[in-house]
Amino acid sequence: LRSLEWRNGCLELLDQTALPGKTEQIVCDDYRRVAEAIRRLEVRGAPAIGAAAAFGVVLGARELASESKEFWPGLLAIAEELRQTRPTAVNLFWAIDRMMSVASRYGSEAVPADIVAALEEEALAIAAEDKTVNQRISEHGAALFGGKATVLTHCNAGALATVAFGTALGVIRQAWAEGKIERVFADETRPLLQGARLTAWELMQEGIPVTLITDNMAGWVMKKKMVEAVIVGADRITLSGDVANKIGTYSVAVLAKEHNIPFYVAAPLSTFDFSIASGDDIPIEERKSDEVTSLGGRRVAPEGVAVFNPAFDVTPSSLVTAIITEYGVLKPPFTAAITELQQKKGGII
Amino acid sequence: LRSLEWRNGCLELLDQTALPGKTEQIVCDDYRRVAEAIRRLEVRGAPAIGAAAAFGVVLGARELASESKEFWPGLLAIAEELRQTRPTAVNLFWAIDRMMSVASRYGSEAVPADIVAALEEEALAIAAEDKTVNQRISEHGAALFGGKATVLTHCNAGALATVAFGTALGVIRQAWAEGKIERVFADETRPLLQGARLTAWELMQEGIPVTLITDNMAGWVMKKKMVEAVIVGADRITLSGDVANKIGTYSVAVLAKEHNIPFYVAAPLSTFDFSIASGDDIPIEERKSDEVTSLGGRRVAPEGVAVFNPAFDVTPSSLVTAIITEYGVLKPPFTAAITELQQKKGGII
Repeated sequence: LRSLEWRNGCLELLDQTALPGKTEQIVCDDYRRVAEAIRRLEVRGAPAIGAAAAFGVVLGARELASESKEFWPGLLAIAEELRQTRPTAVNLFWAIDRMMSVASRYGSEAVPADIVAALEEEALAIAAEDKTVNQRISEHGAALFGGKATVLTHCNAGALATVAFGTALGVIRQAWAEGKIERVFADETRPLLQGARLTAWELMQEGIPVTLITDNMAGWVMKKKMVEAVIVGADRITLSGDVANKIGTYSVAVLAKEHNIPFYVAAPLSTFDFSIASGDDIPIEERKSDEVTSLGGRRVAPEGVAVFNPAFDVTPSSLVTAIITEYGVLKPPFTAAITELQQKKGGII
Repeated sequence: LRSLEWRNGCLELLDQTALPGKTEQIVCDDYRRVAEAIRRLEVRGAPAIGAAAAFGVVLGARELASESKEFWPGLLAIAEELRQTRPTAVNLFWAIDRMMSVASRYGSEAVPADIVAALEEEALAIAAEDKTVNQRISEHGAALFGGKATVLTHCNAGALATVAFGTALGVIRQAWAEGKIERVFADETRPLLQGARLTAWELMQEGIPVTLITDNMAGWVMKKKMVEAVIVGADRITLSGDVANKIGTYSVAVLAKEHNIPFYVAAPLSTFDFSIASGDDIPIEERKSDEVTSLGGRRVAPEGVAVFNPAFDVTPSSLVTAIITEYGVLKPPFTAAITELQQKKGGII
């Protein structure tokens, strides 16, 4: 199961808006189509959009190289357009920065085709590393589990949200392989139902027992002692350990605290934003109201109703039990642990 | 706006499964159709199903009176069938008990037509009282608000959930009329979207500003200080003040506590179950999985996925700030306040 694949010089995306009903590939030979796919959530999940944007830079550079336009102004504009697709997940900016850093090693006299080749190599490296990183995260995370645990997850931080394997679902996959998972409760995750459509589907494909619930049942299943741990992914983590993730994560974290259930976050180094101390400084994307008022073209709410539709929320570090990274498990005090992690930035695993 | 009306010897129900897209009446001239409407949630909301069941008893008695069958065994069976429609809301049992109590005043030699007439009178009284009771609740509740408040509500405890006016939405209507409401946040209330379909619609019809959110946004709007009070209805309240209400209410109550936001419950005396001390003893209805796996009639989850679909949850009294009844506002300690309320049972307002 792969969310994206670089094949014959094109980026192939598994259309996540069509799942689980249809398994369709979107073939992107133009960076504009990649940007559109990110905006439309055809590819979603912080690590996956980072990798997709990296390949978007390759496609953009290739187009520039084949034209007689000026290469550098064009590449900067393409990078900017890709950066504008979604504001919250920092992996997007991390991946584009990394690509532009590679390009910048070439002087203004360089042959564009050489730069394109270097960019392609870097994007492939980002994608390959993501899989390795997720496997490390999964091993570190699975070690947190003892006997047979029932865990709850929100949204989809699985293979579909990454290049492969997943972060939070990677931990669950690994723990399942080690015989440590009894059952997974998947919040359906309104408005776009990533839990119902993607997480339930991914887990069923692997034969991991999953029970689908609506988001508003999370508190009740905790109260009924049906859940022993919560594990989620992240879109951006600050220096203090505040965690931006899919809307609803904050409510789940408060509920976990109320029931003395550990709340784990699984995310790679590329999800950390070391430039921000507080979660208050994370930009939160607001999306169109029709995501809430309609489903599949069918309207469920009255015409003209006002809607608030933030795509993410921020869980303060005080509600986080541990953050699972490819470098190990971070525990409070998070500022110290994350500052230490920052030293590893750019290093190899 | 009325959820039900007794007209020409038939019970007319506003089909709440069709709202807000269509405004359709269901005309019931058979108690079986009333039972079906309750099961299907064509009529829903604790006070409304109580009143509907009362008219169901009238229709059943009328059928028995027109046949040569034995009246009393038939009436007991009809009452039992109506009791079986839904298990959680106690108003259903309260209304049927009240109807059967009226019937029981007639001896076995009585003329069935006389009993039918008495039952019709009693059902009309139940419906008429519900409106009065809700207006009293609304006045008591509105007095709790000071300046301009932004309130959050879950599910629909409006005119549609009662015979008229509503409980929680009745309080909001009254407070709005008194200039004390800034805006209402309506949780959409999965799986059946009573908040999106019914509450948003009711409030918009009255010109009360409403913002629709998905259930998992409730915590975030509280964190962002966008909500100053929560008010909900109830399906059953125990002697200790534990409150069964639509699934998701418990999560909202925990979130309200976390943010020091008052959590109000508005409900009539008929929603109290004085025979139960603890919320653990309230039967919680579980409904079919397709309510969760489909949205607006369209399937969203993989075929064959396991689902947990409790229709209600129980909020412990420790999370409840006050319970607004037609007799006034009850505050902790609730057992004492509710025991005192019990003395008024059967009395007039």
